[in-house]
Amino acid sequence: MNRKIIFYTLGTVLYIEALFMLLPIICSIVYKEPYILGSFVVSALLCTLTGVLFTVKPPDNKAMFAKEGYITVALSWILISLFGCLPFIFSGYIPNFIDAFFETVSGFTTTGASILSDVEALPKSLLFWRSFTHWIGGMGVLVFLVAILPLFGGTNLNLIKAESPGPSVSKLVPKVKSTAKILYTIYIAMTLLMIVLLLFGGMNLFEALTTAFGTAGTGGFGIKNSSLAGYSPYIQNVVTIFMIFFGIDFSIYYLILMKKFSAVLKSNEVRTYLLIILSSILVIGFNIRHLFPSVSEAFRHSSFQVASIITTTGFATADFDLWPSLSKTILVVLMFIGACAGSTGGGMKVSRIIILFKSIIKEIKILAHPKSTIKITMNGRPVEHETVRSVNVFTVAYLSIFVFTLLLISLDNFDFTTNFTAVAATINNIGPGLSKVGPTMNFSEFSSFSKLVLSAAMLIGRLEIFPMLVLFSPATWKK
Amino acid sequence: MNRKIIFYTLGTVLYIEALFMLLPIICSIVYKEPYILGSFVVSALLCTLTGVLFTVKPPDNKAMFAKEGYITVALSWILISLFGCLPFIFSGYIPNFIDAFFETVSGFTTTGASILSDVEALPKSLLFWRSFTHWIGGMGVLVFLVAILPLFGGTNLNLIKAESPGPSVSKLVPKVKSTAKILYTIYIAMTLLMIVLLLFGGMNLFEALTTAFGTAGTGGFGIKNSSLAGYSPYIQNVVTIFMIFFGIDFSIYYLILMKKFSAVLKSNEVRTYLLIILSSILVIGFNIRHLFPSVSEAFRHSSFQVASIITTTGFATADFDLWPSLSKTILVVLMFIGACAGSTGGGMKVSRIIILFKSIIKEIKILAHPKSTIKITMNGRPVEHETVRSVNVFTVAYLSIFVFTLLLISLDNFDFTTNFTAVAATINNIGPGLSKVGPTMNFSEFSSFSKLVLSAAMLIGRLEIFPMLVLFSPATWKK
Repeated sequence: MNRKIIFYTLGTVLYIEALFMLLPIICSIVYKEPYILGSFVVSALLCTLTGVLFTVKPPDNKAMFAKEGYITVALSWILISLFGCLPFIFSGYIPNFIDAFFETVSGFTTTGASILSDVEALPKSLLFWRSFTHWIGGMGVLVFLVAILPLFGGTNLNLIKAESPGPSVSKLVPKVKSTAKILYTIYIAMTLLMIVLLLFGGMNLFEALTTAFGTAGTGGFGIKNSSLAGYSPYIQNVVTIFMIFFGIDFSIYYLILMKKFSAVLKSNEVRTYLLIILSSILVIGFNIRHLFPSVSEAFRHSSFQVASIITTTGFATADFDLWPSLSKTILVVLMFIGACAGSTGGGMKVSRIIILFKSIIKEIKILAHPKSTIKITMNGRPVEHETVRSVNVFTVAYLSIFVFTLLLISLDNFDFTTNFTAVAATINNIGPGLSKVGPTMNFSEFSSFSKLVLSAAMLIGRLEIFPMLVLFSPATWKK
Repeated sequence: MNRKIIFYTLGTVLYIEALFMLLPIICSIVYKEPYILGSFVVSALLCTLTGVLFTVKPPDNKAMFAKEGYITVALSWILISLFGCLPFIFSGYIPNFIDAFFETVSGFTTTGASILSDVEALPKSLLFWRSFTHWIGGMGVLVFLVAILPLFGGTNLNLIKAESPGPSVSKLVPKVKSTAKILYTIYIAMTLLMIVLLLFGGMNLFEALTTAFGTAGTGGFGIKNSSLAGYSPYIQNVVTIFMIFFGIDFSIYYLILMKKFSAVLKSNEVRTYLLIILSSILVIGFNIRHLFPSVSEAFRHSSFQVASIITTTGFATADFDLWPSLSKTILVVLMFIGACAGSTGGGMKVSRIIILFKSIIKEIKILAHPKSTIKITMNGRPVEHETVRSVNVFTVAYLSIFVFTLLLISLDNFDFTTNFTAVAATINNIGPGLSKVGPTMNFSEFSSFSKLVLSAAMLIGRLEIFPMLVLFSPATWKK
């Protein structure tokens, strides 16, 4: 194993985190919060110092193979969360380390589950950092590193592969570096567009920035205790639409920019994603219509919540824990489906669900006609046997981690619905669940042990399981 | 498609059902219940008459291929349930057709979920039939048919394959017919042994018979409202041990009879099954020790409930819905694991779980060392790629049916725990779940629509999904 390249990359990641902390530093100057400024400065210095220690010996060999890629990605995410929680601790607003770690992991993994019962009590620069972690985690810190730094050679596809969600990485252009740049450019452009539209709707710059960060990363941390419930229908609709946009495979936007519209229309995943959203909105809207003064209001809330849950954002405009059982169950199912592969959203991803369903249909046909040969296709092309296999293993691993997490947190003796949806909401990077972790509640009542377990679930979910399993598997460390 | 052989087999199945009805007829004579006798006689006559209609044209061609096998099995189980519910309707004890159908499907599929709130109000011969359907469904009616009738040629492996649970059918001896005979002989012998031990513990013959039927088929219908709670520790322990026995692959007993002990010890599935049982008993026993006057009593109840749930029997000696969250969650997980393949138990089956886990471990090793070649093994032998694939597809299909059923019954607007465990308890053929379908409750509150949906889930679960999917797939019926 090339340990030097791992350490070197981790050090560079910490430099980038220090760089990202400049924004909340500026924020604390603008909003005159000198008592927070210090916490950020010290945290950024600690990042930089540790970064220096890690990069003091540059690697002779820059080759990064699959194993190193997985280990680097897994360790990077643990490391940025450990350093990212320092401002919360130093400022004294979340003095408990485990709480601060949970909150930061929840931020970077774009989960949005919180241990805070009163977010409005936090100073602006801390709220800014909290929402900004969503934006950083959405596209991925290693993708960023590959995009901006020239020193990483040709093998960094393994890094991107390990960090990017979905069953397969589509390289937009032959060069990995250029792909990463294009992805971040689209990400920044869409975030800016959303900020402008939010400002236009009457939000101030701070609200617009934090809301856009939470939406772009499909995170869901809000700056109000009532999430998005207090905002105008216009703002809510803008957020709904952008949540859906950020849940779409970013390569679709690249295809649109390249004017390859026929390829866009061929995308099974996007079509299915939009179809699921539309049908869920209709069924839930119809199911909850009696709870609101008008049908249009019912459909506004239905649209918002469906978009929020399937994209795994987790903002709320209504307490869906009070909705009828059918609506709640649909939302729980959407938690697992998740957004498109190659988006900033979490969950299992629509493309995996499509492949799984197609493999069932294939099996039925083969059982009825054993001599027939059937190939699973996506976007008009046959799917590699390897991809189908990896999707299957992913699903099984996903469910195993789910069950294991569920058993561990059930030690806290909450009800089954709370436990089940708490795990669903963290492993799928959503945020709110039902019952004691419903949209108006938070995760503060869980024990420290459960908070650590759920933090692990968030990280495992964001990195799509295998980087963490590779990191902690004894087989990896055998000579 | 060879429709004649399908009809012919269905007709024969109905003859056998009429034959089986002779036992409750004898029971109603013995216990002097003439008002029930009539219901059974009419039902048996209707079975016979329909059987005559179906078999009036014997097939020229006795070939039964995979497709015909699946269709025959699926239709047989629907048919025996439709005719099996007649005595409940005719006698007036369950006058509603859907209720009677639910109860009968629950019997044949060895689920044990009931819509009756007071089983003790039923006459003895109806209770006898109710429990006897478990015994018939446990080993399978088509396996019985193959065992006793000479007219079915060499291709009836497809029938057994479609009816028997587990990822692969192990033929004990080269001839299918002899395999079926051996299986039924072991089944009858073990049931008789259990009856003797129950009689020895003070049960009367009626109690011993019905309890043994419910245990042997891993069904769970009781003849008391309190299930097994009112019986002595001796009786409870005998039932615990026999539930575990009936959850073991029956080919293991054949190997023991053949004195092939080394092959018995090699069985990964049985070792894992016993290990899961032991560890669950320990954790739950420790978790509930404060709820009982003595530690030994806590462990008696823990053992009983663990055995009852993992074997998907569903008897109860305690209201586990009142147990701590950890214990309940373990029981819910056991519902999905289920018993061994080739036993009378339901669920996903331990062997499938082992294969799924081994495929995760294989994936992690391949990710860390892409050039390595790893083969999944079971009982010391490599598992065919085809088997791994079919286990994966089975799992995905299973979960899809689960989610689909959950969405449909959530229309009744019960809480998530009720809905989730109601589906888990029916698709896995267990019986009781948690909350509104807990061990002291029943399924009567569900709407007729939900009862039909759950009946379908029981049938789909018992036949391990694909026979029903093949039956209802348009591809099957295309020319």
